[in-house]
Amino acid sequence: MEPNTVEKPSVTVLGLGAMGAALARAWLAAGYPLTVWNRTPGRAAALAPEGARVAGSAAQAVAASTLVVICLLDDTSVDEVLAGVDVAGRDLVNLTTSTPAQARARAAWARRHGARYLDGGIMAVPPMVGAPEAGGYVFYSGSRGLFERHQETLGVPAGTTYVGEDAGFAALHDVALLSAMYGMFAGTAHAFALIRREDIDPAALAPLLADWLVAMIPAVHQTADQLCSGDYTTGVVSPLAMQVAGTPTFLRTAEQQGVSPELLIPYFDLMRRRLAEGGGEEDLAGVVDLLLR
Amino acid sequence: MEPNTVEKPSVTVLGLGAMGAALARAWLAAGYPLTVWNRTPGRAAALAPEGARVAGSAAQAVAASTLVVICLLDDTSVDEVLAGVDVAGRDLVNLTTSTPAQARARAAWARRHGARYLDGGIMAVPPMVGAPEAGGYVFYSGSRGLFERHQETLGVPAGTTYVGEDAGFAALHDVALLSAMYGMFAGTAHAFALIRREDIDPAALAPLLADWLVAMIPAVHQTADQLCSGDYTTGVVSPLAMQVAGTPTFLRTAEQQGVSPELLIPYFDLMRRRLAEGGGEEDLAGVVDLLLR
Repeated sequence: MEPNTVEKPSVTVLGLGAMGAALARAWLAAGYPLTVWNRTPGRAAALAPEGARVAGSAAQAVAASTLVVICLLDDTSVDEVLAGVDVAGRDLVNLTTSTPAQARARAAWARRHGARYLDGGIMAVPPMVGAPEAGGYVFYSGSRGLFERHQETLGVPAGTTYVGEDAGFAALHDVALLSAMYGMFAGTAHAFALIRREDIDPAALAPLLADWLVAMIPAVHQTADQLCSGDYTTGVVSPLAMQVAGTPTFLRTAEQQGVSPELLIPYFDLMRRRLAEGGGEEDLAGVVDLLLR
Repeated sequence: MEPNTVEKPSVTVLGLGAMGAALARAWLAAGYPLTVWNRTPGRAAALAPEGARVAGSAAQAVAASTLVVICLLDDTSVDEVLAGVDVAGRDLVNLTTSTPAQARARAAWARRHGARYLDGGIMAVPPMVGAPEAGGYVFYSGSRGLFERHQETLGVPAGTTYVGEDAGFAALHDVALLSAMYGMFAGTAHAFALIRREDIDPAALAPLLADWLVAMIPAVHQTADQLCSGDYTTGVVSPLAMQVAGTPTFLRTAEQQGVSPELLIPYFDLMRRRLAEGGGEEDLAGVVDLLLR
């Protein structure tokens, strides 16, 4: 531990799953006074030799620090753990995976109980926590004052990105980015399946796939600009009509390779629907609107 | 046109759609003797002032150069255009969008007619052709000798990547990469839909999305390694069981935001199927195998 001339604020961490434990260790390593609590006591005790104070109850843990970081399994766990605990005057930072609606409800709950509230969505896996060079970060939304007061402390385990006063926005950004990632993973799964029975090394396809996806990512900026302006047809290089005309080649190739097209069909169906509505001269931005109910 | 001490080989281009015309212009700009033909004659005549010789028929165009580049609408167009044309002794390079099976059949057809054959899959849009810095390239497969003989000429409009003697491999690589791209586009469409009715600027989300996807792309290398080794459980950071446990948050968020989950559900269903089969400790590579019929 380095000597520090300025005293660091104490932090409480509720919940020591893989992520909570990684957060706790990052603060310990940086010399922050840390109080931990976990429903299964063994996980908290394991941190004691590293300098953590182990609280006997969630209430004691909450009482120990102004800044209380919550990293539990889900919103129901937060309900259970904080039931009857006095959170008045605390700065609650809830990193538990939540939907935007759960985050907003939790912010209202905190307000009713006299606590300030910041919600977080973690864009990292535990090994990226405490390793700033790994590029992990946390979306925060809710009380701007709370964020600014604790930004330095919150920045210790991972980068911080504040996305607005609406407590639901951190969860919304988190879910949006992870949803996009699963789409990309679905696409790469289909690509690997196409070559699975051929004499093609997946490790030779991987860099080609990676480079191509990196090259195509800037399309998100064009989509964003089109969604902002409402003009989906200016500067279009590959009009929807042309792209739809190309889809049978993708589906026939899947069939020839013995690969289910189930991961491609929903998007191709939306492209065709937009074309049928008259979007043939557009880029792909119009598909976004078809998803809205 | 620059003066050239070494005479450049002549090239014939059949088909002057947006892509064929871009290819033709790249060779003209580099000083290659060029013969063009297009079913609709106006498009060929437009290239005459730039130095192209306009053939009166496909047969004359094929007779004009050893290297004949075919860039037509689809495989049926290739059938129609080359019906009765003498291709014996020609080096046919077919860049027409095809399935792997169409490419293999075309290679066999060329062999029967005494021609050498190379199939190509273009990883570029027309504005990227003739602009090497744009990063576009063409997959080639089929005759290695033909590829090596003409590699310099073929490299003029875009980069060249040779992927094997099997004439279907260029198309297969092309379709694999583009399929993965559509998966990524599906994911980003869902992400934009999630924020569409919120006070969040799509242009503010775009760089966050882009950076996150770039950070997650290296997962393709791990998937490739796992598919090669058959070991799907070593070094797993986010086990499938944990990822499946997170999916309800994605689906509930979509529902709360009034967004159809249709682009997420097929992949989540496959994740659940693999979990049910006992893949809970695995990464996502097992999903690839579920796509195979």
